Amino acid sequence: MTASLPTGLDPSSLQAARGRIAADVRRTPLWRLPGAALGLDVAEVALKLEHLQVGGSFKARGMFNRMRSLPLPAAGVVIASGGNAGIAVATAARAMGVPCEVFLPELASPAKRQALAALGARVVVQGAVYVEAFEACVARQRDSGALLMHAYDQPEVVAGAATLAAEIEDEGGLPDRVLVSVGGGGLIAGVAAWCAGRCRVEALEPERAPTLHAARAAGQPVDVDVSGVAADSLGARRIGQIAWDVSQHFVSDAHLLSDDDIRQAQLRMWREFRLAVEPAAALPLAALWSGVVRPAPHECVAVVVCGGNVDPSTLSVAP
Amino acid sequence: MTASLPTGLDPSSLQAARGRIAADVRRTPLWRLPGAALGLDVAEVALKLEHLQVGGSFKARGMFNRMRSLPLPAAGVVIASGGNAGIAVATAARAMGVPCEVFLPELASPAKRQALAALGARVVVQGAVYVEAFEACVARQRDSGALLMHAYDQPEVVAGAATLAAEIEDEGGLPDRVLVSVGGGGLIAGVAAWCAGRCRVEALEPERAPTLHAARAAGQPVDVDVSGVAADSLGARRIGQIAWDVSQHFVSDAHLLSDDDIRQAQLRMWREFRLAVEPAAALPLAALWSGVVRPAPHECVAVVVCGGNVDPSTLSVAP
Repeated sequence: MTASLPTGLDPSSLQAARGRIAADVRRTPLWRLPGAALGLDVAEVALKLEHLQVGGSFKARGMFNRMRSLPLPAAGVVIASGGNAGIAVATAARAMGVPCEVFLPELASPAKRQALAALGARVVVQGAVYVEAFEACVARQRDSGALLMHAYDQPEVVAGAATLAAEIEDEGGLPDRVLVSVGGGGLIAGVAAWCAGRCRVEALEPERAPTLHAARAAGQPVDVDVSGVAADSLGARRIGQIAWDVSQHFVSDAHLLSDDDIRQAQLRMWREFRLAVEPAAALPLAALWSGVVRPAPHECVAVVVCGGNVDPSTLSVAP
Repeated sequence: MTASLPTGLDPSSLQAARGRIAADVRRTPLWRLPGAALGLDVAEVALKLEHLQVGGSFKARGMFNRMRSLPLPAAGVVIASGGNAGIAVATAARAMGVPCEVFLPELASPAKRQALAALGARVVVQGAVYVEAFEACVARQRDSGALLMHAYDQPEVVAGAATLAAEIEDEGGLPDRVLVSVGGGGLIAGVAAWCAGRCRVEALEPERAPTLHAARAAGQPVDVDVSGVAADSLGARRIGQIAWDVSQHFVSDAHLLSDDDIRQAQLRMWREFRLAVEPAAALPLAALWSGVVRPAPHECVAVVVCGGNVDPSTLSVAP
């Protein structure tokens, strides 16, 4: 089946990524709990606590992997992203001592601009919406010669995300099923490429940002309207080509979650488990708690808790 | 050396506690990181993420252990505590289906009363300060026949805390040193009883709540004035007798931390590691980051992250 994997995502490339970034990223805990501890009728839930990663999300894995795979020009790196990818690139650039430019649209919040600037990135605000910032970023790359970083649709970025699944497998083998949130699809592409049909990999998407769901319906990647509680992290308008290619072979299903279920799961993860996560990281447990995904009682289910870049005051609500 | 352990804290009692509470509590992750990942010149730091425990702190271990060790009267359990011990007893009582009364002084915040009531406890507000609530609690126990629970100074409660150290040892053996926050001393008594001289166990206390430090200076437990950022969890006025007895043989040192170092470490744990914890849980890393404790470069140091019962909005500060 590995013949179906896109270039750069074969098993040896994924193994190479592990060694390449081992000193840069954290091996995050895999928290194994009996299903009953979460009120679920499954044998085990294994929470991959990837929100504890450098930069607060899984994105650091892919960004370090790309930046350690390719020659780094004196101009450093450039990316258009106001979210976790931008934070991860800025973090990696600082760690590696290279310049970093981050392009943001005008609608990006001052808090994001400040956070990126605090990481040492040069922040460029250009365009009304994300696509204009992206175009400005690409033009800038042509001028400066910097390495262009994409938030999810580059092989090295996807291979970096795959290392997270490798760590899950290290601890007792693959589970029966892995649940992964999807925006642009970089994370699920990496996880699915690693698992390569050896276990079920399922996508969870917000109803209001259904990139993979829409692509499956249309038979190809299509633009979708994006809004809702998780748009901050899962706000890509279209599934990445790599994710689309991998998902056709190795993603079993794509489920939609309501904003209300996502938000309730996010609050429950804090209240009952002291996991402070962003909405995007709550989709897998939202799917289990709401019954959108119903594994068999004998199953071991792995859940990727993908990011913790949340304003903690949003978790402060009365019990 | 085990001859020096108080009754109920011998190795077989501690082992028995593990089995007794296995279905009630969570096995929390031990997150092993190279020291460099925390900016520290030590080989490894192993963070025992006990703030992810049932009820948000290690206290659940001891409370379940006592309630499963002794006959439970129809009147259930009673405790005087506005903090993590009260939450843990209320949580355990709800899980076991027995009544629970919690005595609080008038100074306890409405938020605490509500949290305990939400767990199904009967909340009794009596007395101006903690000691008066405690006296009312003891009087009530005499009338009702309920099982009296103490926040830290009962052998079953200490033996429950020891199970946390057992889990650390399970994963690759004991470290060179374990760093533990101290209030009444139930946690360090359990950890030190388990380790029993096989590795260094060191106490961290706030300067403004130095129960063990003061006892060591006086040669016996003495009352201290208590205030400061961690008083909510480490606000016992005097080290427990059990902790005092155990510590004389098996606690290597007691260090004091300033409120500023504690608060800075708490914020850094959130900012850089997405660990949302209460101030009491930040003392061990505060000690390492401030240089109050300086392990040798070859050491593996275990850090107990003891509680996460924090209002998350207090972690929301500008970078």
